[in-house]
Amino acid sequence: MKELIAQRLQELYPKLVETRRDLHRHPELGFQEVRTSGIVAEWLRGLGLEVETGIAQTGVVGRLRGGRPGKTVALRADMDALPIQDLKTCDYASQVPGKMHACGHDAHTTIVLGAATLLSELREQIAGDVLFIFQPAEEGPGGAAPMIEAGVLEGVDMAFGIHMAPIAPVGIVAVSPGPVMASADEFRLTIRGKGGHAAYPHMALDVIPVAAQVVTALQQIVSRAVDPTKTAVLTIGTIQGGTKSNVIADSVELTGTVRTFDPLLREELPKRIESIVSGIAAGFGASYELDYQFKYPVLINHGEAAQLMREVGVELFGEGRVLDVPPQMTGEDFAYFLQKVPGCFTFLGCKHPEPLVADYNVHHPAFDIDERVLPLGVQLLTAGVLTYLSR
Amino acid sequence: MKELIAQRLQELYPKLVETRRDLHRHPELGFQEVRTSGIVAEWLRGLGLEVETGIAQTGVVGRLRGGRPGKTVALRADMDALPIQDLKTCDYASQVPGKMHACGHDAHTTIVLGAATLLSELREQIAGDVLFIFQPAEEGPGGAAPMIEAGVLEGVDMAFGIHMAPIAPVGIVAVSPGPVMASADEFRLTIRGKGGHAAYPHMALDVIPVAAQVVTALQQIVSRAVDPTKTAVLTIGTIQGGTKSNVIADSVELTGTVRTFDPLLREELPKRIESIVSGIAAGFGASYELDYQFKYPVLINHGEAAQLMREVGVELFGEGRVLDVPPQMTGEDFAYFLQKVPGCFTFLGCKHPEPLVADYNVHHPAFDIDERVLPLGVQLLTAGVLTYLSR
Amino acid sequence: MKELIAQRLQELYPKLVETRRDLHRHPELGFQEVRTSGIVAEWLRGLGLEVETGIAQTGVVGRLRGGRPGKTVALRADMDALPIQDLKTCDYASQVPGKMHACGHDAHTTIVLGAATLLSELREQIAGDVLFIFQPAEEGPGGAAPMIEAGVLEGVDMAFGIHMAPIAPVGIVAVSPGPVMASADEFRLTIRGKGGHAAYPHMALDVIPVAAQVVTALQQIVSRAVDPTKTAVLTIGTIQGGTKSNVIADSVELTGTVRTFDPLLREELPKRIESIVSGIAAGFGASYELDYQFKYPVLINHGEAAQLMREVGVELFGEGRVLDVPPQMTGEDFAYFLQKVPGCFTFLGCKHPEPLVADYNVHHPAFDIDERVLPLGVQLLTAGVLTYLSR
Amino acid sequence: MKELIAQRLQELYPKLVETRRDLHRHPELGFQEVRTSGIVAEWLRGLGLEVETGIAQTGVVGRLRGGRPGKTVALRADMDALPIQDLKTCDYASQVPGKMHACGHDAHTTIVLGAATLLSELREQIAGDVLFIFQPAEEGPGGAAPMIEAGVLEGVDMAFGIHMAPIAPVGIVAVSPGPVMASADEFRLTIRGKGGHAAYPHMALDVIPVAAQVVTALQQIVSRAVDPTKTAVLTIGTIQGGTKSNVIADSVELTGTVRTFDPLLREELPKRIESIVSGIAAGFGASYELDYQFKYPVLINHGEAAQLMREVGVELFGEGRVLDVPPQMTGEDFAYFLQKVPGCFTFLGCKHPEPLVADYNVHHPAFDIDERVLPLGVQLLTAGVLTYLSR
Repeated sequence: MKELIAQRLQELYPKLVETRRDLHRHPELGFQEVRTSGIVAEWLRGLGLEVETGIAQTGVVGRLRGGRPGKTVALRADMDALPIQDLKTCDYASQVPGKMHACGHDAHTTIVLGAATLLSELREQIAGDVLFIFQPAEEGPGGAAPMIEAGVLEGVDMAFGIHMAPIAPVGIVAVSPGPVMASADEFRLTIRGKGGHAAYPHMALDVIPVAAQVVTALQQIVSRAVDPTKTAVLTIGTIQGGTKSNVIADSVELTGTVRTFDPLLREELPKRIESIVSGIAAGFGASYELDYQFKYPVLINHGEAAQLMREVGVELFGEGRVLDVPPQMTGEDFAYFLQKVPGCFTFLGCKHPEPLVADYNVHHPAFDIDERVLPLGVQLLTAGVLTYLSR
Repeated sequence: MKELIAQRLQELYPKLVETRRDLHRHPELGFQEVRTSGIVAEWLRGLGLEVETGIAQTGVVGRLRGGRPGKTVALRADMDALPIQDLKTCDYASQVPGKMHACGHDAHTTIVLGAATLLSELREQIAGDVLFIFQPAEEGPGGAAPMIEAGVLEGVDMAFGIHMAPIAPVGIVAVSPGPVMASADEFRLTIRGKGGHAAYPHMALDVIPVAAQVVTALQQIVSRAVDPTKTAVLTIGTIQGGTKSNVIADSVELTGTVRTFDPLLREELPKRIESIVSGIAAGFGASYELDYQFKYPVLINHGEAAQLMREVGVELFGEGRVLDVPPQMTGEDFAYFLQKVPGCFTFLGCKHPEPLVADYNVHHPAFDIDERVLPLGVQLLTAGVLTYLSR
Repeated sequence: MKELIAQRLQELYPKLVETRRDLHRHPELGFQEVRTSGIVAEWLRGLGLEVETGIAQTGVVGRLRGGRPGKTVALRADMDALPIQDLKTCDYASQVPGKMHACGHDAHTTIVLGAATLLSELREQIAGDVLFIFQPAEEGPGGAAPMIEAGVLEGVDMAFGIHMAPIAPVGIVAVSPGPVMASADEFRLTIRGKGGHAAYPHMALDVIPVAAQVVTALQQIVSRAVDPTKTAVLTIGTIQGGTKSNVIADSVELTGTVRTFDPLLREELPKRIESIVSGIAAGFGASYELDYQFKYPVLINHGEAAQLMREVGVELFGEGRVLDVPPQMTGEDFAYFLQKVPGCFTFLGCKHPEPLVADYNVHHPAFDIDERVLPLGVQLLTAGVLTYLSR
Repeated sequence: MKELIAQRLQELYPKLVETRRDLHRHPELGFQEVRTSGIVAEWLRGLGLEVETGIAQTGVVGRLRGGRPGKTVALRADMDALPIQDLKTCDYASQVPGKMHACGHDAHTTIVLGAATLLSELREQIAGDVLFIFQPAEEGPGGAAPMIEAGVLEGVDMAFGIHMAPIAPVGIVAVSPGPVMASADEFRLTIRGKGGHAAYPHMALDVIPVAAQVVTALQQIVSRAVDPTKTAVLTIGTIQGGTKSNVIADSVELTGTVRTFDPLLREELPKRIESIVSGIAAGFGASYELDYQFKYPVLINHGEAAQLMREVGVELFGEGRVLDVPPQMTGEDFAYFLQKVPGCFTFLGCKHPEPLVADYNVHHPAFDIDERVLPLGVQLLTAGVLTYLSR
């Protein structure tokens, strides 16, 4: 079967490249993936799968029923692009001003379509079902949660997802059990005092120095309150207060993000933040509002699922090509899938052959991939599904 | 002569009120006092004075030559209004949306016109010259400095100015020697680090906590470095940095104002600020730009001039009606005149008879005066000029 | 009478110098003024006064009953020395190791003894009583309050005190109405967290950075919460926490002093301090204890009493020799007397003739005075008493 | 051979317990291990080994020459106790007031003596040499470095060390490759300003608020400058400044410790600290001295050595009994050995059977072990040596 797959991958390669480039030329932002989801649905229908569209607005799910009954495994791809202006000049550069596939979702979608193709050709040998889940809006506000709410994981026993890794060469697979991508929560904090003439601070309540106290105090959460062997980031991304140099500001607004790999710590951090903010505000007689939003949870690979993908990777590409993933502080909404079902998120090396381009990480306006990752991704996911269902 | 003046004031009263109300209805912002300066110039010409217009754009100067030679004394009024929406509903409320005489400059102008009227009627008895200086843009960016540069103080021996004092009842005169109004300087500080993804603070240089350190450190200037028996205010009016909650800000901009009554301290404060900013920025590897602008200087009343106005006030209104001025943290560009020539800035009680209105200080959108201050102001300035020139 | 007094002063001068030098050689700390009070009591008894000793431990009061009935005026001197090692080498240097009259109380005592001498010689001309109050422990913890509690001010209508002013030459008198010396309160603040191994901050509650937040936050009281035209000092004199570099401190103790000239502000400042401390402590989950002690109040000269001393000074020494007192941030427990009865605290120039010594202010280990201040002080107080009682 | 070893361990057990208890009763501080090293040397000599004493003052090395030539492996134990008052009441509690084996070095010494006994009985089967290294002063200031300097590692190919792990039950072995114990460096920072009277802050340079700025700023090193996926601790253990509540402090002294698992980060952290300190000090016109001492380096287990110990542990105690070591922020001077030669530091579960005692971690004054760890430790080290030398 391996040779069969290898041969089919070679045949499929031009179509994979063509599809990825077509998607790359026509990026669509989250929940606006109309063209993309149309291509996906058409492809899946062409394979004879049961296809459902319009899930969580633009999501698509195709179901392959194997020749025999068995477990159900899901492959998930994300379809949305970013609000970034493409700086590339190649013929497949984005044709949509201000939008770009700068995070490789075009490749993810293409790879899962490729896996759907191969697996549907092997339908009779398969004991169980395979779900191909294409979700919107991974870059935010998140398509995974509404798709799960719509029921796409019902009956699913295992879920696999993949992500481009532009710092690793093509052929490298990075996969680890446990927490691999951080939670990514957000907050908006408004501290309110009392404005007034800059010449009369005692008749006002100047909140700019109060906000400065809050910003310095919040540093102690990471520096003192978090177990040093655990990981947490608290970044205040914006601060804004006041209208004029000679008028005392009546409020300061701060926004920020909090990230960690530890679900318990994730629950504790907003309490620490609120405690510090409320204490300092009260100390100066100021008031505050803290709007804290839990966003993507920690992405935690299931131990056995990670082990399976590691073994599949080693078998396909060799021992030295399968690495551990260093923990990523970035978030990923596949984490919601792994809260519901066992599964694994795997990174695929795709470093561009040109050294200059190879330096551009995801979200860079000149980001690009080595397209030879496409058949390797198809191969990995196909083998992952077959191995899982055959055990 | 006192009785003559008293009688003339009674006759003039309706015209003073009418003029003040006309100006109040038609406020004009700094350097746009076209209508106002036209009224002023016409009035002065009607008195037979030598009138020069268009000084520092909209400034006007009228010269009264006395019957005999002597010294030259200047009376100064400011003509500009504020960008405030008048909330009053009386028939003389501002007719210009978003503009208002909320600082009493309409009264100042009217009073000096009244003094010009009386003094020109006494021309033959006067030994010396009287200059009536009407300046633009006291509320900023300042009309005094360009008028002085244009030469209006040439040959002037003494200068008097007045200001409405809405916290004191009509008939009260407040005057002190020495520093009575603070310098008012401004700064703009930009601290620059290195932006980046909020998840990777170690690859960026997050300047929001650096700016917080600067804000807290700057508090020590007033709390530790300034002689406690001296007065200084350092207000940071605005802070702004960053664009997104999950992106590390690459710069933070702060603006503020610095005020004091001590000219030496005024010179030292920007050095202290720059020392602290440069030290902290360097400590974190950040850079900065500090743009520090010396604006209105400390207004320092000349000892003998203040004594003269005090004596005149006591003679006119009685001992108990002449008070010391508590130091005002607000700025006033008459300070530039007093840097060049001896003189005195005097406050006149004008508390509105209605208790509710009486609570509204200058710059309040419902500010108003008790118009009985107008003849008293004319009387004070006229007597001040006559007394000075007769000594 | 003036000539009589002048002649007697000349005769008394050697004895005044001798007495001051004797006291200077034998300094005694607060509430230990046994030898000093003995000398004082013996002197007063020698003048035939009614003498009471042992008031508030070592205090002495002598009463002179005038020839006719009238008001009662008190002259107050302080007798205690400081725990400072005298660096002088002259023959009247301190003979007690580690103790020294470095604040001029030897001169104050001598001057009041001199005034007692002159006034008792004029007894028959005096209408009223004169009280000579010699108090212990002005340098702390304070002898004025317990002496008042013991009743020394009963029936007193007016109180005068004096202090050496080493920055002004002999013959200068400095006196002003209103607040002239600051209140001087003290606090001790303990912030408690939870100790632990330095390697495990998350298992402890490290209060050293919490204390640092408190120290920086407290700066905002003076920099933002106090009217800039008023005066306040908040100094944290000591900070101490932790026992070892690799152990997390479980508490930090801070002590400090707070000074102002405004009695209302004096009441408000401890509330502000406690609000900030309690807010920040709560924000970090720490606890605290704040022990705030109101010590010497603001010394406020009575308007008419100051006017009387000014007039007396002008008459004795000439107009140019009587100056205003710039407000002094140091405290003085004569303030307690002025809370109970009208009165005035007056400064006497005593700048040492040698330029080097003249640089040493009070509390300096090489402080000394120009002894010609002694008869001038006697003259001033004697004239003050006579003038007051004759009005 | 396994059975032989098991039998010998059973026979040895009483002697191991007796020896450990003897050492426990007679704790000796670092570089004072005279009695302990005497016992060790006597034991080793009794086994017929070549023994060298007095290395780095109190260190002892015994050399076992195997029957055949081969590699050289070292077993290291530490002998010193802690300055802690033993709270236990059992008959082997410390008999030396204020000193105690609260870190298990008595067990480490006993275990290595046990291993020496077994291995010397197997001498003929051994190809290579075994060195038994007993070092002083592991708790500081460190005996490893001077022993290495004295040459004890010459010719050594592999080094093994062990440590008690009171949180794991007897029979658990915890071992991992890579960094397992943090570096532990120390610093002393003095910030110097200018003292003065608390009432005159402008004439002094108050360093207590400057130190507060430094303490808050240093939090940003861990919170912002360190890669969140790496580990660093910066604890300020002590702060001390000032002498009196009403005197401005002229200096503040801080001491602290810095810990990390990353040798490059370890080099960078003092530079960051000094940059922040020097910037803030300069900003306020203060000076500083920073004495930064690199102490114990990161303890990094050699990959193959850790693998060997893991395999030996699995073989002896079973798969489920061999765990990874979570990284320990505490330091250990065996790290110096591993900078010179390959090797591994392994933790042995020794949780006391009584639940109350089991809660007391190392350095607790009531710390105790389950002595059944002693033969297991001997078994592990003996098997480790035999396995290594047989490969």
